[in-house]
Amino acid sequence: MPLLSTTRVYSGRIVNLDLDSVRFPDDSVGQLEILRHPGAAAVVPFLDPPRDRDPRVVLIRQFRHAADGFIWEVPAGRLDSGESPEHCARRELEEETGMRAARLERLTTIYTTPGFTDERIHLFLAEELEPGAEHREADEFMELHTLRWSEVLRLVEQGEIVDGKTLVALLFVQGFRR
Amino acid sequence: MPLLSTTRVYSGRIVNLDLDSVRFPDDSVGQLEILRHPGAAAVVPFLDPPRDRDPRVVLIRQFRHAADGFIWEVPAGRLDSGESPEHCARRELEEETGMRAARLERLTTIYTTPGFTDERIHLFLAEELEPGAEHREADEFMELHTLRWSEVLRLVEQGEIVDGKTLVALLFVQGFRR
Repeated sequence: MPLLSTTRVYSGRIVNLDLDSVRFPDDSVGQLEILRHPGAAAVVPFLDPPRDRDPRVVLIRQFRHAADGFIWEVPAGRLDSGESPEHCARRELEEETGMRAARLERLTTIYTTPGFTDERIHLFLAEELEPGAEHREADEFMELHTLRWSEVLRLVEQGEIVDGKTLVALLFVQGFRR
Repeated sequence: MPLLSTTRVYSGRIVNLDLDSVRFPDDSVGQLEILRHPGAAAVVPFLDPPRDRDPRVVLIRQFRHAADGFIWEVPAGRLDSGESPEHCARRELEEETGMRAARLERLTTIYTTPGFTDERIHLFLAEELEPGAEHREADEFMELHTLRWSEVLRLVEQGEIVDGKTLVALLFVQGFRR
């Protein structure tokens, strides 16, 4: 393992920043800043079955300070301590949209930006949705929207969807699942 | 604008971490950690023209401490101060692969993980490649690989490509450009 030692340089509410001493592949040693993250799960929730020609999907407009406004996202959130990615996906889907998925399928897992964080997001496809119990966190500002799949793809192509995990999840479904 | 004030809590080699006071959409005020990043550009470099049935593409196996090993990526790197995304894409392509692109096409722009960083990556498609001058940075460990497009898609579908920007770039090309 290339990690030689680690020093916590900042402990925050969402993130912790470490300065790691690392042995590189050429046996040299250097220091790297790395933001430790517990990981997350995200879900593409379909309201209609795959046989539907232009199925409806639920997306969120979420306020992101880093993006200076509201952006399109799929429902998603951080893993609780010890929580499985699938459990997190089901929990976040219900908390953010008020719906439970009878069917959840794993798509893939991404490192959001491995140059400076170990954050991984596990991506899922949700189908056969049923009413559940919506429950937002206090600092989440979001609106639910129901869109046709063709409209979602138009937003992707025109550059109006900018969130990395959301783009991977939607394009992965388009390429390999629907 | 929702930003009320900002305090730098850590200044690093690659990243700076700020604690921002933010006015939220409901007029409440809160504090958010945000990792400031200069932005980056990434390129999908095609060796063969679009009319080729299964064109060759250049990918990189890059050492990422955060991912605990080598992962597949497209050529990419940070914007220099004042540099345009297109210039950065051309520069990083040449530095990392030794090739110049006669044709560069913008795909889209992503926020890598807008919950805690303002990092944006501008994605491009490169064609009509010519020999240039390879030049790696000291702490970059990478191998160049030439793959057929069908093989790249197989790696994506099987979850062997895990880098967020790389997945968006490849799947965007597959969905809308080739």
